[in-house]
Amino acid sequence: MLQPATAAPGTIEVLPQPYLLFLGDVVEPAYAKTAFGLRDWAGERCVGEFACTGAGVSTGLPYLSPEQARAEGARSMVIGVANPGGRIPPAWLPALRQALEAGLDLIGGMHARLEAIDALRRAADRLGRRLIDVRQPPPGIQVANGRKRDGRRLLTVGTDCAVGKKYTALALVREGRRLGVDADFRATGQTGILIAGQGIPLDAVVADFAAGAAEMLSPDAGAEHWDVIEGQGSLVHPAYAGVSLALLHGSQPDVIVVCHQAGRDTVLGHPGYPLPGIEETIELNLRLGRRTNPRIRCAGVSLNTAKLDAAQAERLIAAESERLGCPVADPMRGGEAFRRLAQACLR
Amino acid sequence: MLQPATAAPGTIEVLPQPYLLFLGDVVEPAYAKTAFGLRDWAGERCVGEFACTGAGVSTGLPYLSPEQARAEGARSMVIGVANPGGRIPPAWLPALRQALEAGLDLIGGMHARLEAIDALRRAADRLGRRLIDVRQPPPGIQVANGRKRDGRRLLTVGTDCAVGKKYTALALVREGRRLGVDADFRATGQTGILIAGQGIPLDAVVADFAAGAAEMLSPDAGAEHWDVIEGQGSLVHPAYAGVSLALLHGSQPDVIVVCHQAGRDTVLGHPGYPLPGIEETIELNLRLGRRTNPRIRCAGVSLNTAKLDAAQAERLIAAESERLGCPVADPMRGGEAFRRLAQACLR
Repeated sequence: MLQPATAAPGTIEVLPQPYLLFLGDVVEPAYAKTAFGLRDWAGERCVGEFACTGAGVSTGLPYLSPEQARAEGARSMVIGVANPGGRIPPAWLPALRQALEAGLDLIGGMHARLEAIDALRRAADRLGRRLIDVRQPPPGIQVANGRKRDGRRLLTVGTDCAVGKKYTALALVREGRRLGVDADFRATGQTGILIAGQGIPLDAVVADFAAGAAEMLSPDAGAEHWDVIEGQGSLVHPAYAGVSLALLHGSQPDVIVVCHQAGRDTVLGHPGYPLPGIEETIELNLRLGRRTNPRIRCAGVSLNTAKLDAAQAERLIAAESERLGCPVADPMRGGEAFRRLAQACLR
Repeated sequence: MLQPATAAPGTIEVLPQPYLLFLGDVVEPAYAKTAFGLRDWAGERCVGEFACTGAGVSTGLPYLSPEQARAEGARSMVIGVANPGGRIPPAWLPALRQALEAGLDLIGGMHARLEAIDALRRAADRLGRRLIDVRQPPPGIQVANGRKRDGRRLLTVGTDCAVGKKYTALALVREGRRLGVDADFRATGQTGILIAGQGIPLDAVVADFAAGAAEMLSPDAGAEHWDVIEGQGSLVHPAYAGVSLALLHGSQPDVIVVCHQAGRDTVLGHPGYPLPGIEETIELNLRLGRRTNPRIRCAGVSLNTAKLDAAQAERLIAAESERLGCPVADPMRGGEAFRRLAQACLR
């Protein structure tokens, strides 16, 4: 679990917490990733879970009605599941209305916007409750100014999407705090924003303002303070490289950690595009990142070894660390390797 | 002048032409750049100009009332001026309403949206006329797929913003057509869109879709057809590099032309950021552009010599061509140097 970030920039909203997690009517655990992420990383801010009759997934948190959750201090109910298509099925509406009636705001991050559902909008208006969409960027984002900010920053970058950039950033903050480092997680995607209770969905910002959004996300801070920023995409992704470059420039990282999934050879969803090597990824990020922070350095590599067994993973991590000459670790496996990586990052 | 582009992709709207150019009440020619650009590059699709009483700027086109313009075949009136702040002053409203009454649609590209002005929206609704905002991206933009498209593409890239990327692209299309090349200008900014009569304002697209927008802008075409694409920003711009990279990846250019303004040393509006050298700009664009088109090449350099006299410009162009080992020209000055550059581009 992760304590909430310290004071957010004034214009980035802090979400109403604690949460009640809503699991809809899904029966497939893969669709409940958001709920599991919240349980794992913001569990102390989740009072329980709620679902439609017939749901077949549980986070293991206490099952509470919205009324019970409100009595336990919950201030919002988070839609913690996604279904293919990102729609909100009519079967969920009674439960969502029940939460509004119980005094909870609703937080969603699906493609379908809560505001677009008449029945919910009318209920929320009548009850004075809010419908919050974490895919919606905050107002007031400016064009980036490129001015160097105070405080320290780490950005997780990657060879591809979905290799563990969010998880790595969260694990580094947790380990850093354990070491006594003043560190905050800065979220750039929906699940990360729900975990942190604040952030900017960078992929939803208008292109001209994307670097400015990254500047706003990690404002001036104390000289010893670390913002650990959730990366997005990769600089060689045929669709998302622009987002990655805007985030790199606007974040002005002092440190990058390159994230890669062992065994992935091509860009997810783009089989015609081979993944770059880790060395090439380090070099390209340092070269382009130097533009807004000449002191940028790579502290190590986060290797997602989910597809390997423990012995294979340990051998690969040792071999890659030797080959690359820097700390390499899988934050999911933790251990001494990960502690070395965290120390190299946040020293 | 430039003939309109051939068949646009289905989902990119073609603006209603010919135009009547509206000059508002401005007295400072610098604020009428859009109108001058339209006169110079789409003059055969501009029937005349119209202004408020007291305006002090003219394009030299015939002064026509909206009613006269409609009789001459005009289908829309374009706001061809900007004022500081991008607002539409109340003094313009009678003229804008008059155009709607005369049967013309209104086209604007200022910060203030025409739709947001109640009096105009009501008049347009009543008259069945349209209020078109060229800063508004078309619907239906997809995430980029990275698939290599048929046909040939040229992208003007730059060392900075506002160095002549649009002008260079327009001049290359004009020269290419003179040489018998089948070429279309593809616009990515407001003025370019008005000139072409179609395009996508790339800076206004949500970041995740920017490369996809660039793919949509230059769809599959015949093997000998050239799309000449208006570049935006630069890969080392502290605010806009993400837009430039998305445009580079999505455009998949076979050819780049690097645009630079002689004498500019730092990024416009960011004096702390030195401009990169032309060689570095070529190398970085080729390196990153290779990702989606391995055959990318740099055909030459477009040097904006507006701040030099003719003799200085000629000397500098010759010296830079010698130093860089490629064609260098100022399209504003044209001449043999520019013909060589165009031939090197579109051969």
